Amino acid sequence: MPQRSCRILLFATLLVATAVASADPLASWADGAGKKAIVDFVAGVTREDSADYVPPRERIAVFDNDGTLWAEQPIYFQFAFAIDRVKTLASVHPEWRTTAPFKDLLAGDTKALAASGKQGLLQVMAAAHTGITTEDFSTIVGSWLATAKHPRFQRQYTELAYQPMLELLDYLRSQNFKTFIVSGGGVEFMRVFAEQVYGIPPEQVIGSSAVTKFVPVGTNGKPALIKEPQVEFIDDGPGKPSGINRFIGRRPLLAFGNSDGDLQMLQWTAGGAGPRFVALLHHTDADREYAYDRQSPVGKLDKALDEARRQQWLVVDMKRDWLRIFSAGK
Amino acid sequence: MPQRSCRILLFATLLVATAVASADPLASWADGAGKKAIVDFVAGVTREDSADYVPPRERIAVFDNDGTLWAEQPIYFQFAFAIDRVKTLASVHPEWRTTAPFKDLLAGDTKALAASGKQGLLQVMAAAHTGITTEDFSTIVGSWLATAKHPRFQRQYTELAYQPMLELLDYLRSQNFKTFIVSGGGVEFMRVFAEQVYGIPPEQVIGSSAVTKFVPVGTNGKPALIKEPQVEFIDDGPGKPSGINRFIGRRPLLAFGNSDGDLQMLQWTAGGAGPRFVALLHHTDADREYAYDRQSPVGKLDKALDEARRQQWLVVDMKRDWLRIFSAGK
Repeated sequence: MPQRSCRILLFATLLVATAVASADPLASWADGAGKKAIVDFVAGVTREDSADYVPPRERIAVFDNDGTLWAEQPIYFQFAFAIDRVKTLASVHPEWRTTAPFKDLLAGDTKALAASGKQGLLQVMAAAHTGITTEDFSTIVGSWLATAKHPRFQRQYTELAYQPMLELLDYLRSQNFKTFIVSGGGVEFMRVFAEQVYGIPPEQVIGSSAVTKFVPVGTNGKPALIKEPQVEFIDDGPGKPSGINRFIGRRPLLAFGNSDGDLQMLQWTAGGAGPRFVALLHHTDADREYAYDRQSPVGKLDKALDEARRQQWLVVDMKRDWLRIFSAGK
Repeated sequence: MPQRSCRILLFATLLVATAVASADPLASWADGAGKKAIVDFVAGVTREDSADYVPPRERIAVFDNDGTLWAEQPIYFQFAFAIDRVKTLASVHPEWRTTAPFKDLLAGDTKALAASGKQGLLQVMAAAHTGITTEDFSTIVGSWLATAKHPRFQRQYTELAYQPMLELLDYLRSQNFKTFIVSGGGVEFMRVFAEQVYGIPPEQVIGSSAVTKFVPVGTNGKPALIKEPQVEFIDDGPGKPSGINRFIGRRPLLAFGNSDGDLQMLQWTAGGAGPRFVALLHHTDADREYAYDRQSPVGKLDKALDEARRQQWLVVDMKRDWLRIFSAGK
């Protein structure tokens, strides 16, 4: 290599390094205590000369999905999928026209549907999610995501991922964190979009699941896994630390949630030795998104908010702390 | 950078590159059809100009553990741990002196112990594995691995990892494969040594598990997960494709097993679209290790061997194909 090329290479490297250092990886976060707490924590655990240094293999970051990485109002997006799926399947299920909760769903009677309670919800979810192969299910979810629109924002659901959280995920990965989703949502539903939208590969998505049955020779002559109408695991509340233990096997260094269903995940994370970072997103922005907490039927945030204040966990105030909300649009 | 340093750097880089290229990453594998099949497959899916090219994120490789990555005779090593653990706990369980299967175990009556069947086995495993926190359990397993010796080889169990398989794991990772264990063994048992011995981090170990219970305030004042005497998931036989689906969410590109418990994992892998690599290790070396297959109570290989021959999966003959067996010693 002649000397001149060598110099140019060195100069170009320095130029790129400077550009990278000066761009704000958390550009959609308002300058303030929240953003500073995140950056200070990451600097503390990644600087090799820091007393709090943590080696890359232990840099596990876990995120709830609904209400933390994307919106969850007015109903969980996966439930919107289930409703649309039941409508699609209704033509081959004439009995649904006279059976609750399906007749209420098909009649658009959301009040009666809600009155069917947890049992009704599970019936709708089972009808929408089971009795098909895992591969067919992924295809169906993919088609739905490509066409369905959110009732208020009139955008695809995947466009309602939160831009500040996408930046946080990228920032953590640039600092050699491994990012995981730990959600009460269905694992096979989330995996369809998690890699493209969040940059989180399927093997780092933990969620609720149904039993699958292995069939050596499926309808196409090849082995298949059939989704059965039997709950296998509910990854919510105390299920979240159990799920983290089972799937990851390491205590997270950082955990981010937004509702009471995340409380135990945050406690489990905070209880580890050495530095840990625990945060809650508080939905405070009715104009740009939604404002809800203690009374909300979806994403209720009550006990976890009290605990966050007691323990001085970071509470991100969406209205104050986020300059931009969604990955698409405003 | 002066021109001379630049030249030296270039020269050093070329030197290292040459050395790496000429070292055989599978040095403990005998030259032959098996080794060639592995190398050809990996080249086919990793060369960007190949028709079979697979992007790195989809390069998932799954390995059974007992009898595939380390030995499993005369009894599964985890069962040896359970026996030692029951002996240690016997002083605080005087009732065990008069109750089967514990009294038989404590008396060293392996015949009576074996006669207690699956129920007896589960009782021993539950006594050894549950009623403690996940963290205490890891500590206990770590202490046992550091001191216990294999009855025939008089070596620590972790020294009975197979050197050719360690080379294969390293080789695959060097080609941007992500390596996973998918084993009937207990996930929390394997995680204690998998990272150090195999280079496989906890979050890439899939195994059988017991239910864990989250306790917000444990005995040390911090949250804990208690291992309960209730089976959560058996990652064996048809459980393996279900486990792969649940934990990884992608069809593996490569699968390696050694017994009938791996059959469905191999079928599931082979059934994927495009190139797939499926292999069985056949224990054929009574001198250096063990020779067993269709009649063995541990690691029975019967139906999967027939299927491998029908489907022309690779069957590695330990005696013929491996120049060296263990990571330590001969």
